[in-house]
Amino acid sequence: MQAKNKLVVVGSVAVDWVITPRAEREESVGGAAVFFSMAAAPLCPVQLVGIVGQDFPAAAIADLEGAEVDLEGLERSEGKTFRWKGRYHENMNSRDTLETHLNVFEDFSPKLPASYRDSEFLFLANIQPSLQLDVLEQMNGRPRLVGLDTMNLWIDIAHDKLLEVLARVDVLTVNEEEALQLTAETNLVRAARKIRELGPQTVVIKRGEYGALCFGPEDSLFAAPALPLDDVIDPTGAGDSFAGGFMAHLARAASWPTSRGLAISRRRASARP
Amino acid sequence: MQAKNKLVVVGSVAVDWVITPRAEREESVGGAAVFFSMAAAPLCPVQLVGIVGQDFPAAAIADLEGAEVDLEGLERSEGKTFRWKGRYHENMNSRDTLETHLNVFEDFSPKLPASYRDSEFLFLANIQPSLQLDVLEQMNGRPRLVGLDTMNLWIDIAHDKLLEVLARVDVLTVNEEEALQLTAETNLVRAARKIRELGPQTVVIKRGEYGALCFGPEDSLFAAPALPLDDVIDPTGAGDSFAGGFMAHLARAASWPTSRGLAISRRRASARP
Repeated sequence: MQAKNKLVVVGSVAVDWVITPRAEREESVGGAAVFFSMAAAPLCPVQLVGIVGQDFPAAAIADLEGAEVDLEGLERSEGKTFRWKGRYHENMNSRDTLETHLNVFEDFSPKLPASYRDSEFLFLANIQPSLQLDVLEQMNGRPRLVGLDTMNLWIDIAHDKLLEVLARVDVLTVNEEEALQLTAETNLVRAARKIRELGPQTVVIKRGEYGALCFGPEDSLFAAPALPLDDVIDPTGAGDSFAGGFMAHLARAASWPTSRGLAISRRRASARP
Repeated sequence: MQAKNKLVVVGSVAVDWVITPRAEREESVGGAAVFFSMAAAPLCPVQLVGIVGQDFPAAAIADLEGAEVDLEGLERSEGKTFRWKGRYHENMNSRDTLETHLNVFEDFSPKLPASYRDSEFLFLANIQPSLQLDVLEQMNGRPRLVGLDTMNLWIDIAHDKLLEVLARVDVLTVNEEEALQLTAETNLVRAARKIRELGPQTVVIKRGEYGALCFGPEDSLFAAPALPLDDVIDPTGAGDSFAGGFMAHLARAASWPTSRGLAISRRRASARP
């Protein structure tokens, strides 16, 4: 039997204070790496890299361990866990950040356990581009597939470093606004084309309740609608969970032609809500 | 050989003054019935009901005739054609109406030619609900499939009459805002459910560049993404053209089970951009 492909993810592990039109929770487990891992773990072995403080709930650690997420790369530090507080607008498609406390994340310097370094799949969730680069360089050789997420903040204040990471990844997953901001474009098709010139052969545009678009080589396109829900409580982490399912499925299937990225022809493009 | 199903459409025929971020045209042929007919005509015989004034361009009449749209039900009247002037916002997903001149449309009283009255497919494009009802009642018996479009104006000022029409149609095609406004809902899934209780067994929600959702019996759902374009010049009539293709395809195919509307199960739902 072939060994299973392993998937390393580096990103935030957080305690969120989330306010939505439907609910408010002051101590909610969050962070891109957590959402990503919980979505990916049912599909393939996941190895998490991150940092928490002493206030991070033991129950959340137990949940991650219960899902068989490898936590050898999760540093436990003095001080408090990264905390984010945000409020969603009425339609839940947009939100305002009310507070951000980096806490232990401020001086985080990721150290990859030896058991992580040969993994073939790597996802650099949304953190400082310099840390993303640092993790990529600790891998033994180039992983078979590297995915990347980022946000408006890094596009603004760490643009050059972000371009350096972009040049070395296969897949970028961002939302519409980030894609347009990154390329100074007003049109998504042209933005995706420009991003592909910066490195990643596959660009996945996340559109919230409208699903996702995947742009690939030779203007290929795959559209996946999102299943509409009749009661949305809290959309936090939806994009990270999506990325987790996306990367883990590829790690499990691992059957695409490596020379052409994730190419899917227009003809074969199809989607099921 | 089986006779082809005919499709009757009633709606506006207009001269538009369109301003978009990419172009401005002062004398642009428009109107829901025109866009609908031009999209539907390649798929099935189309019979148009509407009214124009003496300023309606002869070239547009020639285009409709060239597409083999039956214009026996197009009344030519003294006075000027219905005129609309609008300006699109930067992202082209929304627009402001700058001027509306009803002109000959003000006293329009649709009269269906005898040759239209036995057609099996009928689309009531966006006009006053009382005129939609009038056309429906001129048909000989109930057509096999009746589609309906409407807008915020009629939801506001002709609500009761609109409910009367809704109770007698099979398919409603509206955009997200209209669906929410019509049902006083904030969630699309719940809005579609409520609309189905008002009459139409199939509710098609048009989402502009995000495609369309089709809600049917037993919470069935079909999602069709839209093909993203790298250069959008003028989106006027996109929804009407979509409805034209939708209705005409059904008129041509005419193979769905009539007892269950356009039921498509969740399992079989699929979409191609």
